[in-house]
Amino acid sequence: MPRISAQQQSDRRNEILAAAQRCFVRSGFHGASMQDICAEAGMSPGNLYRYFPSKEALIAGIAERDRAEVAHSFAEADLSQGVFKVLEGLAHYHFAQRPIEDVLLCTEVMGQARRHPDIGEISRSFDVDVRRWLRDLLDAGVARGDIPGDVDLDGAITMLMTIADGMWWRRALDPDFDPEKIVPIFIDIMRHLLRSRPKQAGESSS
Amino acid sequence: MPRISAQQQSDRRNEILAAAQRCFVRSGFHGASMQDICAEAGMSPGNLYRYFPSKEALIAGIAERDRAEVAHSFAEADLSQGVFKVLEGLAHYHFAQRPIEDVLLCTEVMGQARRHPDIGEISRSFDVDVRRWLRDLLDAGVARGDIPGDVDLDGAITMLMTIADGMWWRRALDPDFDPEKIVPIFIDIMRHLLRSRPKQAGESSS
Repeated sequence: MPRISAQQQSDRRNEILAAAQRCFVRSGFHGASMQDICAEAGMSPGNLYRYFPSKEALIAGIAERDRAEVAHSFAEADLSQGVFKVLEGLAHYHFAQRPIEDVLLCTEVMGQARRHPDIGEISRSFDVDVRRWLRDLLDAGVARGDIPGDVDLDGAITMLMTIADGMWWRRALDPDFDPEKIVPIFIDIMRHLLRSRPKQAGESSS
Repeated sequence: MPRISAQQQSDRRNEILAAAQRCFVRSGFHGASMQDICAEAGMSPGNLYRYFPSKEALIAGIAERDRAEVAHSFAEADLSQGVFKVLEGLAHYHFAQRPIEDVLLCTEVMGQARRHPDIGEISRSFDVDVRRWLRDLLDAGVARGDIPGDVDLDGAITMLMTIADGMWWRRALDPDFDPEKIVPIFIDIMRHLLRSRPKQAGESSS
């Protein structure tokens, strides 16, 4: 293989992952062949296999890319307007604004998680990370006084993540589901679970 | 085929559906072959094909059976203690008490719904029925005065069904998920969405 720079290698990886995602979304994990993915990426099998030796490796690569993106969306949280403003922004972004391809890939991964131990492990470890990032964010909310100290944060996080799964499945399967209409109801529930005081200064009422 | 009574035919159908469900849960819709299902049901292919000519027909049969069961759980609702008692009973039953095989089959169907038009149609029409049964129940709650008349019932139903999807996926995939712990949080959210007055006579507080 000709020597290419680290940046070129990284760009090439991202192109392959985007091509693989389109194939998985279109044909499913089983239906998409490595050959289809090579064709979609416009690469020879020999070249693509140097980057990703299997469909599982491609799923792992996509999960790694998405994990970095979600980590970034938590890391750039600006708490100056309160934790609820941050949570609302995350809800709008992850439930309504993310491209439908991300939603469909996520449901495809969930659909395969029980049957493929590698994919199950990817899905579970992503879940553990999201739970930790949410916990850190809510702890910061408690420290700021936005969230009362006696709220059951673990229970609230489990419920918020449960609703998140449902939101993604609804977007994937229900043609009548309009996430923009449901996000305000989600935000109302989140404030209820975390017992935000509705008339606190600096916050819009739910 | 020897003449058998309608009752015997119905029993045989139910045995086949139970065997098919075990195979789909174990090996997935694609992994389970008609041959596996015949072996699990202890029947010859010729005999089983008379009842169900395809895996899609088996999924449709299971959905029909489950639809009848869910319809029954709504139809036997006893409103004498208020609509929230009924809703709590349904939540405990469908989220915590239903056998894990039902949950795993449902997630298998959802996972196949985008790729198989027949299965997608089964899944969507089930959804439409549940929405209608919930709507009838909540309308009865409004008529009784348990639920205020100005609640956005459509929004609440969409959110309750979204959470239900998430609960089933969590039960299927998350080994740390304890539905018994989460059902009380679900009930609290449901009461919040439907704005139940916490100290109404004849109802336990959430």
